[in-house]
Amino acid sequence: MRTSRRGAVDPFIVMDVVEAAQAAEAAGRHIVHMEIGQPGTGAPRAALDRLAEDMRESPLGYSGSLGLPELRARIARHYGEWYDLDLDPSRVIVTAGASGAFVLAFSALFDTGARVGLGEPCYPSYRQILSALGMEPVAFPTSLDARFQPVPSDLDGLDLDGLIVASPANPSGTALGRQELSDLSETCDARGVSLISDEIYHGLGYSGRSVSALEVTDEVVVINSFSKYFAMTGWRVGWMVVPEALARTIERLAQNLFICAPHAGQRLALHAMDCTGELEEMKAVYARNRELLLEGLPKAGLPAIAPPDGAFYVYADVSEVTDDSRELARRLLDEAGVAVAPGADFDRGRGDRWLRFSYSAATSDIEEGLVRIARFMGRA
Amino acid sequence: MRTSRRGAVDPFIVMDVVEAAQAAEAAGRHIVHMEIGQPGTGAPRAALDRLAEDMRESPLGYSGSLGLPELRARIARHYGEWYDLDLDPSRVIVTAGASGAFVLAFSALFDTGARVGLGEPCYPSYRQILSALGMEPVAFPTSLDARFQPVPSDLDGLDLDGLIVASPANPSGTALGRQELSDLSETCDARGVSLISDEIYHGLGYSGRSVSALEVTDEVVVINSFSKYFAMTGWRVGWMVVPEALARTIERLAQNLFICAPHAGQRLALHAMDCTGELEEMKAVYARNRELLLEGLPKAGLPAIAPPDGAFYVYADVSEVTDDSRELARRLLDEAGVAVAPGADFDRGRGDRWLRFSYSAATSDIEEGLVRIARFMGRA
Repeated sequence: MRTSRRGAVDPFIVMDVVEAAQAAEAAGRHIVHMEIGQPGTGAPRAALDRLAEDMRESPLGYSGSLGLPELRARIARHYGEWYDLDLDPSRVIVTAGASGAFVLAFSALFDTGARVGLGEPCYPSYRQILSALGMEPVAFPTSLDARFQPVPSDLDGLDLDGLIVASPANPSGTALGRQELSDLSETCDARGVSLISDEIYHGLGYSGRSVSALEVTDEVVVINSFSKYFAMTGWRVGWMVVPEALARTIERLAQNLFICAPHAGQRLALHAMDCTGELEEMKAVYARNRELLLEGLPKAGLPAIAPPDGAFYVYADVSEVTDDSRELARRLLDEAGVAVAPGADFDRGRGDRWLRFSYSAATSDIEEGLVRIARFMGRA
Repeated sequence: MRTSRRGAVDPFIVMDVVEAAQAAEAAGRHIVHMEIGQPGTGAPRAALDRLAEDMRESPLGYSGSLGLPELRARIARHYGEWYDLDLDPSRVIVTAGASGAFVLAFSALFDTGARVGLGEPCYPSYRQILSALGMEPVAFPTSLDARFQPVPSDLDGLDLDGLIVASPANPSGTALGRQELSDLSETCDARGVSLISDEIYHGLGYSGRSVSALEVTDEVVVINSFSKYFAMTGWRVGWMVVPEALARTIERLAQNLFICAPHAGQRLALHAMDCTGELEEMKAVYARNRELLLEGLPKAGLPAIAPPDGAFYVYADVSEVTDDSRELARRLLDEAGVAVAPGADFDRGRGDRWLRFSYSAATSDIEEGLVRIARFMGRA
């Protein structure tokens, strides 16, 4: 059976690390996991208890394609609570994770061959989803001066149909401020470029709250998820906020491509939004882990980049140690028992000189990881 | 913000019926639901209880992109139990519902503009997913003589890249036998057409078990789901069986487009596969409902078509009553309080003279629905 050209997307390199780490564990070794962006804890306990009740009382069948009305309303309220925005629930669409939101957004906005810009380093699946849909990802390098975020002049000469920004970003953790978002939004408007703002690490800012693109414009597709702050990765529930006029198009696509987001996960999300105490405790762990890494990595001989504003990643320049970060990641796993993500997933141009450290694990794991890294680097 | 051409897919007409039915219920009316293909009960009780335990013991984070290994192995075993096939678990991929499986299959097999055949009447989302991915659905009419299933000669002159078959089919409920599947498979092989077999209603056959395309060829993508026989609609878990060589392509696409199927739903699916007793009780309800409809619809003046072999639908010719089945469906809802699906979703050519009745609801609902339909038709 012939396979398609569009289906020949790049592999997730980090998944090779995951598999190698699992193989090492299966062989009896202890591995510290700093490769994957996944909260170590799971969904809030109180929310799970309430879902268990729901499971006794409802068949949890198909929800409407745009999501449970009560969840859409609750998310709209969230924009009031977090951003002081008055958002109509009809603009909120619950999706099968942020992944599902990207598929819906790209399908609703772009046709075959559309050119969609992404500033590297960035989340690799942007590129692969666009390719799989027959669109053209247009990667351009961002600069460390601009804290690895796109600036308006990056768009010059690219003839884009769309632009994806992320704040706080993966892998860098850097955030866009209100003025920066506003400048990018105005540039996109002036050039007829559809703006997509990935805000899935909102709630995980360590120097003040993150700014939503919705604070500067309504002409944007905002994508978010219950996977990170709400710690619900495996439940596959995300959401998007779209311009009024786009909602009906997205609904028709969602009916056909997804039918609906998982119902149980939607109910869990609704309950999780009431669990501020548990969620803030998790965030405090990440904050502590982040401090440990920002202090420990330089001591271990790996200078961290501009302090990451949010998410749970530190993206570190390792060019003084290697120009092959995949090999360094392999050696860190084999010799030190620490799994990390090579930069090549995020930046095809410069990624071979960078590593991403995730600090979403337990603090004791992060401490142990730092000891092992320092020893590996000959600093302890 | 501009929307894409590919995003302008047709609406699901039945969703208009669903909304009108819900509005009627909100206004205090009692509605019999025969419009939606959803088991009335929900997932097996014993499986839900075991999932509740899992929720206490595991964070249920990301699974691998191809699904939980134990579920993939269990599905492979299922092909031994049901079809006497020896299937390597590496060919089994767990997906975000059958919907997710279609997106993965089409992306892995077809490029922009690829021509994919579908015999109408059929599940409307085939067409819409193909369009949303920039491919070309090629609909052709099947005949009542061929029990609304494609035959090899239907492919003549169509220059297809792919063909989708479904057995038991939605909306007709008719099944393909081993010889018919074998003939179609051979024709596809000879013409270089990739064959996709939708088997999501397997397990719901009322005159012997359904035949899988895997019994006649390995050169096929088989798509299935836990939504129907296993009654897990809202959990959004399906699966596919692919040729060995396709698995790695699908894995890369799944990593990027979905990350993974919902973890909790995967565990529930694993447990549900042990709940044969509960599942067969549900099937016995459908079987009873089917008998009631096959007897009751003709008496009410609506001759049913060739007795449906499986699924939980009766597709009825209403041409003696109307040439506008959307209007008839509207009147059935307004005047009789019975929600049904107009044929236009399934067959753009002839659907205006057909209605689909789902019998997945409780038997008491089906009985009441038939009384109401007979009264509406002036037969009671």
